Amino acid sequence: MSSIIEIAKQAKAASVVLAQLSEEQKNNALLAVASSISRHREEILAANRLDLLAARPLVESGRMVAVLYDRLKLDDAKLDDIVTGIQQVVAMVDPVGRVTLATELDEDLTLYRVTCPIGVIGVIFESRPDALLQISSLCLKSGNAALLKGGSEAENSNRALFRVIHCAAVEQGIPAEALALLESREDVNALLGAEGFVDLIVPRGSNDLVRFIQQNTAIPVLGHAEGICHIYVDSDGDLQKAIGITLDAKVEYPAACNAVETLLVHRDVAASFLPRVADALKSRGVELRCDERSIQYVADAWQTHESDWSTEYCDLILSIKVVDSLDEAIEHINFYGSNHTDAIVTENEAAWERFFAGVDSAGVYLNASTRFADGYRYGFGAEVGISTGKLHPRGPVGLEGLVTYKYKLVGDGHTGNMYSANRGRRFTHRALD
Amino acid sequence: MSSIIEIAKQAKAASVVLAQLSEEQKNNALLAVASSISRHREEILAANRLDLLAARPLVESGRMVAVLYDRLKLDDAKLDDIVTGIQQVVAMVDPVGRVTLATELDEDLTLYRVTCPIGVIGVIFESRPDALLQISSLCLKSGNAALLKGGSEAENSNRALFRVIHCAAVEQGIPAEALALLESREDVNALLGAEGFVDLIVPRGSNDLVRFIQQNTAIPVLGHAEGICHIYVDSDGDLQKAIGITLDAKVEYPAACNAVETLLVHRDVAASFLPRVADALKSRGVELRCDERSIQYVADAWQTHESDWSTEYCDLILSIKVVDSLDEAIEHINFYGSNHTDAIVTENEAAWERFFAGVDSAGVYLNASTRFADGYRYGFGAEVGISTGKLHPRGPVGLEGLVTYKYKLVGDGHTGNMYSANRGRRFTHRALD
Repeated sequence: MSSIIEIAKQAKAASVVLAQLSEEQKNNALLAVASSISRHREEILAANRLDLLAARPLVESGRMVAVLYDRLKLDDAKLDDIVTGIQQVVAMVDPVGRVTLATELDEDLTLYRVTCPIGVIGVIFESRPDALLQISSLCLKSGNAALLKGGSEAENSNRALFRVIHCAAVEQGIPAEALALLESREDVNALLGAEGFVDLIVPRGSNDLVRFIQQNTAIPVLGHAEGICHIYVDSDGDLQKAIGITLDAKVEYPAACNAVETLLVHRDVAASFLPRVADALKSRGVELRCDERSIQYVADAWQTHESDWSTEYCDLILSIKVVDSLDEAIEHINFYGSNHTDAIVTENEAAWERFFAGVDSAGVYLNASTRFADGYRYGFGAEVGISTGKLHPRGPVGLEGLVTYKYKLVGDGHTGNMYSANRGRRFTHRALD
Repeated sequence: MSSIIEIAKQAKAASVVLAQLSEEQKNNALLAVASSISRHREEILAANRLDLLAARPLVESGRMVAVLYDRLKLDDAKLDDIVTGIQQVVAMVDPVGRVTLATELDEDLTLYRVTCPIGVIGVIFESRPDALLQISSLCLKSGNAALLKGGSEAENSNRALFRVIHCAAVEQGIPAEALALLESREDVNALLGAEGFVDLIVPRGSNDLVRFIQQNTAIPVLGHAEGICHIYVDSDGDLQKAIGITLDAKVEYPAACNAVETLLVHRDVAASFLPRVADALKSRGVELRCDERSIQYVADAWQTHESDWSTEYCDLILSIKVVDSLDEAIEHINFYGSNHTDAIVTENEAAWERFFAGVDSAGVYLNASTRFADGYRYGFGAEVGISTGKLHPRGPVGLEGLVTYKYKLVGDGHTGNMYSANRGRRFTHRALD
């Protein structure tokens, strides 16, 4: 048996203990982690400097982009943010043990549906070492064991951070096997094969990473590969709002999954809206790709190809299409989109209600930028990722998404055949408050 | 493009319309279906007789077991049950459109989490034609399009039932493409490949069918292959209750997925409990397979092999093991079980609380038979299946399990960069009632 399977098996056993911890025990462990990070600043920053030294030649030779280097870098301000983040997780309500259904089936026979941890979560993330802290604290608070695999470029930082978290948590009575750091690429392959011991895989990184993982494991994967978000400007849209929202959603952070990739414009407002939004976008350096109908209103645009509609540019590029109706917009979004986040700009209530019901995405927005699709902005404190799947959890996933539920039935010797036709007992099925 | 992909694509388009139907429209369609079934009894029963005639030689030559023949058979009483079942679904609360979270993010910027249909559900079921009715009505009420593939032995019955449902629903304004009947084995393969158009597959049938489907599609599958349920008799268990529960869970319907397969007994009560329960089970024709420690208390038992602990017998066979502790029982269940339903018999509150927290199954029961794991018995009216997965839905799946949710954000031109450090707006994140 590979050592990773052995580690996963031990994590599974530890998850049974984790599931029984009180909120106080979990919070004490998190507070201990936060204070230990403050105390071990020097050690963590020294480890991070090793990673930065190794990365510098990569940046200089163009093999690592500058933004990745920035994400890799830790400093006092980032460590302060990390500590604050953990304290916020402590302040959040325990997602475990909430009763979401209680039904009296019969006298002395009561059914409860109660939230509980998912079990063992494997997290594979690239670069940012602060993600390790954010994800471990969410897993700990939700009572899940976590197997963590960071990017090799952050190897020293991750090792130092993990040592600090692990020691502090174990000292507070968390089972040592509940948190493990995986280090090699082979470990990832073993993790993907650990069905039965690992309940959920969370990939955080490039689309290629996510797609590779989705195609190579039978374990459920939480996340999304593409983020192809749309803004639809309705015939009853306020064009000033539409310009502000489009600019924000495209230029603020074009590499984000919640950035907009395609702008759909109702034909009735195309002539008045497109020249204005095109000027605004071009002044911010955005390349525009237009379909046959929109290109007549936009100077210096490229013509779109079919493939544009299903491309996440991750760059200052926007595709534009004129549509004849709200229904055509909904159809386009459901066909080419990635079920992530899509916005309508309109002042017409019937239009946005139809858009909200018809668009099959985790987020549907009225007169707001797609950039709000984020666990912090939603008020979840933090997120482990954004799910575009339709089975729970969906959208930004915070603490609530990290728990499942079980049905607990409390009887007093009740058997099924008491309720057979000839025995005559009947279910009461009375909802309890 | 295969015709099934085309049908699935049209169902996807129809699901957008379904998602916008009011509760009244859906209930009217269901009531029309119920009354149409009553009116078309003759036609349905005549079609069913054709299937029964074709099945009879199979039963006589031993190629079909009698119980399958019974399930295939429709009569007036079963049709009455079907009509009553549909009326019960009408009476249930609409699972769509419930607001499960409402947060003010800022002035005029409000986030809602609202339940919505999953989309297109492919259902593959064997034999029982009444399953077709139960599943179509649950799908209709939850606003999901359904692609239905029944067993070939019920071909005529399914065709007649489908025609009645489809005509009645379409007359009430349900899009014709929202319900489709698939007929061939090749259709199933095409359905399994219809990723992007089909959101969920629900197999209802043998373990082999479920396993085949799980291994041959990238679409999420709801259900379970094995149902390996356990009863653990604790040292503080009431042995009289334990006998009644064990008998019920094994002999009432041994082929059911919620029947018990393994009995775990604490060593302190092994000597007093095992001879009694063994006598009771043997008098009902149950074959007992015992581990080394339990066999000394049981006359005429076979010795277990390692494979017994992970076998769903679907028959009057029970494996028995003596354990040293509650923890050993929990470990055994989590390792060999199928996360379906497991029961503890005890009068000790600390023991069952530990069992409830530690056993990683969709159902954990105290002093009650595992046979209660069923949508009807849980008060869900009906079920499409029982899920042993940990991502929603879990356990018996009724209406609530057939909806997902989306986040709806209502703004007034809000952009993400309003909340950047230098722009200074802050999220309020105030929970709304």
